[in-house]
Amino acid sequence: MTIKPQPVIILVEPQMGENIGMCARAMLNCGLQRLRLVNPRQSWPNEAAKATAADADLVLRDLEVFETLDQALNDCHCVFATTARDRSLNIPFMPVGDAVVDAKKGIGKGQQVAFLFGPEASGLTNKAIARADRLLKFPTNPEFSSLNLAQAVLLLGWEWRRSSQDVESFSQTEAISRGQLEAFLLRLESELESKGFFLTSDMKPHSAKTLRSIFSKARLNDSEVKMLHGVLSALTKPVNIGSVSDAAE
Amino acid sequence: MTIKPQPVIILVEPQMGENIGMCARAMLNCGLQRLRLVNPRQSWPNEAAKATAADADLVLRDLEVFETLDQALNDCHCVFATTARDRSLNIPFMPVGDAVVDAKKGIGKGQQVAFLFGPEASGLTNKAIARADRLLKFPTNPEFSSLNLAQAVLLLGWEWRRSSQDVESFSQTEAISRGQLEAFLLRLESELESKGFFLTSDMKPHSAKTLRSIFSKARLNDSEVKMLHGVLSALTKPVNIGSVSDAAE
Repeated sequence: MTIKPQPVIILVEPQMGENIGMCARAMLNCGLQRLRLVNPRQSWPNEAAKATAADADLVLRDLEVFETLDQALNDCHCVFATTARDRSLNIPFMPVGDAVVDAKKGIGKGQQVAFLFGPEASGLTNKAIARADRLLKFPTNPEFSSLNLAQAVLLLGWEWRRSSQDVESFSQTEAISRGQLEAFLLRLESELESKGFFLTSDMKPHSAKTLRSIFSKARLNDSEVKMLHGVLSALTKPVNIGSVSDAAE
Repeated sequence: MTIKPQPVIILVEPQMGENIGMCARAMLNCGLQRLRLVNPRQSWPNEAAKATAADADLVLRDLEVFETLDQALNDCHCVFATTARDRSLNIPFMPVGDAVVDAKKGIGKGQQVAFLFGPEASGLTNKAIARADRLLKFPTNPEFSSLNLAQAVLLLGWEWRRSSQDVESFSQTEAISRGQLEAFLLRLESELESKGFFLTSDMKPHSAKTLRSIFSKARLNDSEVKMLHGVLSALTKPVNIGSVSDAAE
């Protein structure tokens, strides 16, 4: 069966099988059925998930499991992270309704769009959030804002479904995949490492995270990443012999 | 504490305490806190309900229990019944969004407005539905339409909340001035120029424009621009004497 173009729901390190099943059910209620898990705490397949999914077991059947978030995002062009808290990273926040419209536009262009949900107890880490190009917040009651996992997934699905816009016709996407972005970021980090940019090893994860978020939220396209690779090559090019001797003189 | 004018949520013959607690939580997520039970299957108060309500226990504390639906509806002016099925009764159906607007109008006139939800397994009986002046259906996936109780309550609450307030403004970390961005871009261009990045002078304006757009759309903040300056300094740092002699050997 082919399914309509739709976003991928990614549960990052979900703790309870029951909740995975409930998410599957909430998704299918809203016509969504592409589910990925990153490093679930309990082994997969999981009986508790099957029990709570009930007749939404077709979502579980096609579910994909990844060891790392980077693997799960490798083919994704556009990544929304759901978070209840304001975060220090400077990634733009979108209300869920706008995010869904934005996601539909991307999907219409042939992009792979992902929505990330964190573990039940703690939500997404800043490290995971740095991989998103947009943050998504559910405007619940500020005095009691915390949604459980399946309910957050349900509200996203509901907004997806209620959004009346049809998915625009497909055209070739220009946005890069997370895999391409990752390759650039790894190269940048490695160049910076060799130049002693990360003064202490303590500092490195934080700085790397900030760099990641800068380039994630820019939503780069193919030619822009090519250019950034070119920039990196140019900037790190060893000074030529002529220049060295000029400088030495 | 006085609470804002709002509808009453009535659970008719709920079967499981857990679900009552989940409903309380979903309600409070959306700022609703007036809950009534009609003839719950399990005795009340109920420990399982308290456990799943978590910090929404204030909803349970003020909850009212009635023996019959007629008693629970006694002070209500306007009654919406939620049902997944089409019914033979000739009561007008309303989409949930319209129902919420209608409910608000009634409440604005001082009316008591109720939303009825049936037992988990079977939904409302025709006898219960006959007490409603409007029917309310959630337009879920027709091939998998059945919502669990707390999720149906959540979607009603969500629609109530989204109609009762304008979308909250999503504040964003203060963006840098165009002047700060310009300074960084000029420095980047100048470094690239000196490294021969711009192969021809024709090419330069186009490449510079692309670079500008990459960093413009990232909506950088102050500390991010500082970091990018640091990156530039690190990448362009001349190789140290040791490395030069290594390379020369």
